[in-house]
Amino acid sequence: MPLDTDQTAGATHTYARVQDFYARHMHLLDAGEAAEWAAMFTPDGVFVPPSAPEPIRGRQALEAGVRSAAAALADKGEQVRHLLTMAAVEPRADGVLFVRSYTQVVVTPQGGKPRLDIMCVCEDELVAAGDELLVRHRRVTRDDLP
Amino acid sequence: MPLDTDQTAGATHTYARVQDFYARHMHLLDAGEAAEWAAMFTPDGVFVPPSAPEPIRGRQALEAGVRSAAAALADKGEQVRHLLTMAAVEPRADGVLFVRSYTQVVVTPQGGKPRLDIMCVCEDELVAAGDELLVRHRRVTRDDLP
Amino acid sequence: MPLDTDQTAGATHTYARVQDFYARHMHLLDAGEAAEWAAMFTPDGVFVPPSAPEPIRGRQALEAGVRSAAAALADKGEQVRHLLTMAAVEPRADGVLFVRSYTQVVVTPQGGKPRLDIMCVCEDELVAAGDELLVRHRRVTRDDLP
Repeated sequence: MPLDTDQTAGATHTYARVQDFYARHMHLLDAGEAAEWAAMFTPDGVFVPPSAPEPIRGRQALEAGVRSAAAALADKGEQVRHLLTMAAVEPRADGVLFVRSYTQVVVTPQGGKPRLDIMCVCEDELVAAGDELLVRHRRVTRDDLP
Repeated sequence: MPLDTDQTAGATHTYARVQDFYARHMHLLDAGEAAEWAAMFTPDGVFVPPSAPEPIRGRQALEAGVRSAAAALADKGEQVRHLLTMAAVEPRADGVLFVRSYTQVVVTPQGGKPRLDIMCVCEDELVAAGDELLVRHRRVTRDDLP
Repeated sequence: MPLDTDQTAGATHTYARVQDFYARHMHLLDAGEAAEWAAMFTPDGVFVPPSAPEPIRGRQALEAGVRSAAAALADKGEQVRHLLTMAAVEPRADGVLFVRSYTQVVVTPQGGKPRLDIMCVCEDELVAAGDELLVRHRRVTRDDLP
């Protein structure tokens, strides 16, 4: 099979890095590690969530949003997991990686059954900063909302 | 660790390509992009679905099937997502990739909660065509059916 | 993008191997192939499950546990699927791979709808044995239990 030429090796390496990036990113989010999670955006990174009136801009605002969400969940005694799968990675001419993926948001109450709470589509622009990837722009939509 | 020899590099590149292939494939399916989805099969590709009396053969028939399914979903106001995970990739001597994976079919009504509708196993034979992968044969089974 | 240097190629190859490892591992588990599943642990491998009073040690005990679980499921006419996603892979100085991931346990009764039964976090220590990976230590926690 002529699949694994030098030409394709770069794309392959990138794909694994993207997957590992999202795994670490979601682990931080679900643990409420707000500052570490926000640090995986560029300093001026933008997050366009499905239900906020305005985009969230910059690490400080991103961190604050996760911090308050984590506090609300802790009050309710619920554990959230973000399961990001089906990532399609498209390298663009300017070096940006455009990644479209699906995210299941699963919520489990203490002593209860997990529920699939929200089904999302996530569209990210990732950029490289040294050995790291960072989110420059994120747009999330929910399947239940128009 | 002796994991990353030249010998294993080919298998690794292939794995990422397979994952990216399925991500793009399912994005097209869930968007109702019937022709583009069917073009990811070989011209004479076969799909053995869990509940049809006969296999579906060829791109034209594959496209027609997705087109009518997408129309039915649009009428109901529901969004379907196909989440393919746990892909085990086995390269065969004839150059065919045999891929066994799990697929969650998640359906979300407008304004409602997502539901895990069907749990499937997908067994594909993939072949290379230039830089692309194509499905030569697909067999899907449902966990709820005998 | 400076992502795909020789320095990073090793980590990339490892990531794909880890994913393929888990796919094969879970396919065996869900098929009730107890001996083949247990053989993917080191001979003295340890599994710390969420609800057992003691860790399970060694392939024989691991195999026995899966064998009895599979028999109970067959009696109930239910099919279980373990969907492991969001694997973050951290190579350690001693050559051990530390992998943290999420696992959805989905159960489907014959003729019924699948249900998301348990949401877990899995923390594995993987070691290389020739071309294979093996689990040296596994700790699983459930989101619904304290």
